[in-house]
Amino acid sequence: MRIAIAQLDYTVGAFDANLGLMTEAVSESRRLRADLVVFTELATVGYPPGDLLERRDFVDRNLRQLDRVAALSDDSLGIIAGYVDRNTAGHGKGLFNSAALCVGGRAVARYHKCLLPSYDVFDEARHFEPGGPAKPVLFKGVRLGISVCEDVWADPDLDGRSIYHRDPVLEQVEAGAQVLINISASPFELGKAAQRRDLVRRYAAQSGRFFAYANQVGGNDELVFDGHSIVVDPTGQVVVRGRDFAPDLLVYDIDLEASSGVPGELRRVAESTEEEAVKALELGLRDYAKKTGFDRVLLGLSGGIDSAVTAAIAARALGPDKVLGVALPTRYSSTGSLDDARALADNLGIGFQIIPIDKIFQSYLDGLSEVFAGAEPDVTEENIQARIRGGVLMALSNKFGRLLLTTGNKSEVAVGYATLYGDMAGGLAVISDVAKTLVYDIARFLNFRRETIPASIIDKPPSAELRPDQRDQDSLPPYEDLDRVVEGYVERNRSVEELVAEGMDREIVVAVVELIDRAEYKRRQAAPGIKITAKAFGIGRRYPIVADYRGLHSSEK
Amino acid sequence: MRIAIAQLDYTVGAFDANLGLMTEAVSESRRLRADLVVFTELATVGYPPGDLLERRDFVDRNLRQLDRVAALSDDSLGIIAGYVDRNTAGHGKGLFNSAALCVGGRAVARYHKCLLPSYDVFDEARHFEPGGPAKPVLFKGVRLGISVCEDVWADPDLDGRSIYHRDPVLEQVEAGAQVLINISASPFELGKAAQRRDLVRRYAAQSGRFFAYANQVGGNDELVFDGHSIVVDPTGQVVVRGRDFAPDLLVYDIDLEASSGVPGELRRVAESTEEEAVKALELGLRDYAKKTGFDRVLLGLSGGIDSAVTAAIAARALGPDKVLGVALPTRYSSTGSLDDARALADNLGIGFQIIPIDKIFQSYLDGLSEVFAGAEPDVTEENIQARIRGGVLMALSNKFGRLLLTTGNKSEVAVGYATLYGDMAGGLAVISDVAKTLVYDIARFLNFRRETIPASIIDKPPSAELRPDQRDQDSLPPYEDLDRVVEGYVERNRSVEELVAEGMDREIVVAVVELIDRAEYKRRQAAPGIKITAKAFGIGRRYPIVADYRGLHSSEK
Repeated sequence: MRIAIAQLDYTVGAFDANLGLMTEAVSESRRLRADLVVFTELATVGYPPGDLLERRDFVDRNLRQLDRVAALSDDSLGIIAGYVDRNTAGHGKGLFNSAALCVGGRAVARYHKCLLPSYDVFDEARHFEPGGPAKPVLFKGVRLGISVCEDVWADPDLDGRSIYHRDPVLEQVEAGAQVLINISASPFELGKAAQRRDLVRRYAAQSGRFFAYANQVGGNDELVFDGHSIVVDPTGQVVVRGRDFAPDLLVYDIDLEASSGVPGELRRVAESTEEEAVKALELGLRDYAKKTGFDRVLLGLSGGIDSAVTAAIAARALGPDKVLGVALPTRYSSTGSLDDARALADNLGIGFQIIPIDKIFQSYLDGLSEVFAGAEPDVTEENIQARIRGGVLMALSNKFGRLLLTTGNKSEVAVGYATLYGDMAGGLAVISDVAKTLVYDIARFLNFRRETIPASIIDKPPSAELRPDQRDQDSLPPYEDLDRVVEGYVERNRSVEELVAEGMDREIVVAVVELIDRAEYKRRQAAPGIKITAKAFGIGRRYPIVADYRGLHSSEK
Repeated sequence: MRIAIAQLDYTVGAFDANLGLMTEAVSESRRLRADLVVFTELATVGYPPGDLLERRDFVDRNLRQLDRVAALSDDSLGIIAGYVDRNTAGHGKGLFNSAALCVGGRAVARYHKCLLPSYDVFDEARHFEPGGPAKPVLFKGVRLGISVCEDVWADPDLDGRSIYHRDPVLEQVEAGAQVLINISASPFELGKAAQRRDLVRRYAAQSGRFFAYANQVGGNDELVFDGHSIVVDPTGQVVVRGRDFAPDLLVYDIDLEASSGVPGELRRVAESTEEEAVKALELGLRDYAKKTGFDRVLLGLSGGIDSAVTAAIAARALGPDKVLGVALPTRYSSTGSLDDARALADNLGIGFQIIPIDKIFQSYLDGLSEVFAGAEPDVTEENIQARIRGGVLMALSNKFGRLLLTTGNKSEVAVGYATLYGDMAGGLAVISDVAKTLVYDIARFLNFRRETIPASIIDKPPSAELRPDQRDQDSLPPYEDLDRVVEGYVERNRSVEELVAEGMDREIVVAVVELIDRAEYKRRQAAPGIKITAKAFGIGRRYPIVADYRGLHSSEK
């Protein structure tokens, strides 16, 4: 059985455009004499559709889209595609997250996803009813054991618990499936491709079945899907592997009689954390811009590392001619910073403008001098500068139709070392899930072949330059320490006591945790950021603003 | 059996302060010789805790809090309190949303919530495992049928479907419960108190049991809990009713032999939509400020209806002396508007300042004149003014520690008739779930006894005053029409075709729906707003930014 995996980049709700992509993939598969084309989870609508699922017209449209996809099948070429089905029973959530097998122009069998992820960025229990016992479907005499995304993640966690009560893949195997097929829309995070591969390999080896794993590719809002579809043979070896972070059509001949597979093409995929991160951010940025209708972007260039890395990623994602860097100096900006920003722009070949804002800053100070009379300068004046920058950049965005990128990194977003409506202003936060230490690693990675990011930007101590001689390290612990606390507190949910027990300095832990808690109100108004870790700030971390965090971390009275 | 319902205002995670409130309620109940005190859902932590539930230290702290609450009980006074329990089984989500019966100083029986709401603002399937079959617990010889919040909402919807498979209250009745008790943290929306009351009345009448319904009160982030606890007798009559939008302790003698109850105190509660809305917004604002540590607020006063109503609500919530209104005129501001703003501030007795921003505006225009050379004035220049206002108000907020309130209404938030980082800047959006037409109704309601909001503010045509002779109605349909579309499209999920079939003008529907869809990126960065309808923008409406909405609403090719 020759199987084709169509790893495509859908836009949610773009029914006609998505059908165009699917039609092409079907034509190509037919030309390659495939027996079966496998599309990914919710291919009819694109993942994640969110609360669009609550719209009857959206679900109807998806069902008609399934008919259109099914019409592309015939008796020699079958299609498996993810879609939204209705639950017609009198109880339970009204929808299923389903896969249809289409043969001869129509859907002939259906499978409903059993495990509905409801954690982190996932809200599937919000919309879907779980499917009943998983059973294989017959296609050209072969029993296909279909599953959908989370259905392969029934694994117990480190504590030996599973959040699920079933294992749909094992159900398929026990019910006689000869070939396993999973259709996914599994979002990227660093290291996750390897995790997925290992899950699929284990199921294949344990069951002695070929396992075809199809994953969506592309960026949608905060999420990037990395593709990276694979076929694993009954010994657990990956025999064919699709591209990462790009659409692909993978074809493989499954020999049902064989106990192992003939190795096919293994596309080159990212080999380091830095490369994975860069590819993910590039795709996330490119797709966000494209799918929201922007072909050009702009960003503030401070001469610092964060805006430098953001600009470099934007230049790779969209082409340097689509990127405009703007320096917005005040009285506190050093000549070095301006030179660094200019050198960066030259290196990248992006547009560069200087718009001094000191006169605007002075007009604020003048306008406020009466009400501020007698008050000492404080963070207020720093925020005014940052907000003027945000205002000027948004004015350029409005006037010239460029998407404004924000440049804050995860460490800053964590501790709130950023100004709401100031440097936080913008449509997309490119590196808001990249810790400061990783930002440096990425800068060095980008400089590997030739110096793209001037060494002086990498080497100088980080500063916001909002008052004389300011350094980040005046207000914050060293980033190595800060990032360890963020990782432990945010990504691993460790308590203050646990982090101290892990060897971190109590004073630093307490200070950083307090900053993280208190910055929740800022993050609530942050631009969406591209998620690359297991726990990004954004839709996957739902902390209250109103809470007594200090009480929480203190010891009981 | 003398039962006391403690309807308290918790702060999430404020373990010591919350215990203080509970201890007071227990003392008072003991003084009143109650047999049982009933606290509300998740009383140990406050509702909604969100992803704090993923923190082991938070759950541990909650368990110790339960011990402390249990210690308040003795052999004559029992306590029922909501808390988070751990699921010690090897599978399923790791937590239960539970109620404990505490007697003689310790928890003696537990009940786990069966129906876990996962829609709109609710994410309970994210954290909790549903409980097994509901069974009564014995207390002083009486079989108490406990349920938690959503457990009373097993009802089928208008299509005759129930999203749930069980009815835990009926399970309790069938298992022999003599008295029904529900502990809730059921957020307010307009008309919901009546809905809840009817549910409880129906269960009481159908089962012939007394039903005590305890609901949390207070504001937490976007949600307001209205209290409004009740006891219903076996005939379905409400025999005692707690305050709405304020803490209360309700006491009632349940006569297990009686087929009906003796009417007790029925506190006066809001009697109109406008009164409900005003009380909810007052409480939401007061608690948001208090619980985030602000005792004073400020807001921009444009002389328009939205800022007027927001200011009036703030003055009622916090006292006029805690509220500062700031007028920020430019060349486009009319004298009338400034006079109206001043008259409003005088009427309310709030602080008032005028900070002209035209010079700052001019400094922006000067600073941008080179890059903007040759470009026509457009919305950019309007946004610059709005963002200067946002910047100046935030400067006052930063300098003087006042919470900045935003004043946009739901109609504006819906269609994006607002400037990101401009008039959208602030910590809390007081009326962002109040449609413009309801804003007017509220203004008239507030003016009932004496003119608080000057008639000229109510009577003049709405204008943003960002360019000469600007009127809202130049850019938008009449608010009556706009609000109908928003209600149909957002709150009822109706399609364009359905709204046209309901009699709305197709051109208006298409225009408004397109504006709503396109403004999603703005709403993602909006301040949290107080929810008062069935569907507010915010955490309960999760629409993608990246989506082809236009494709969705168009007819198929």
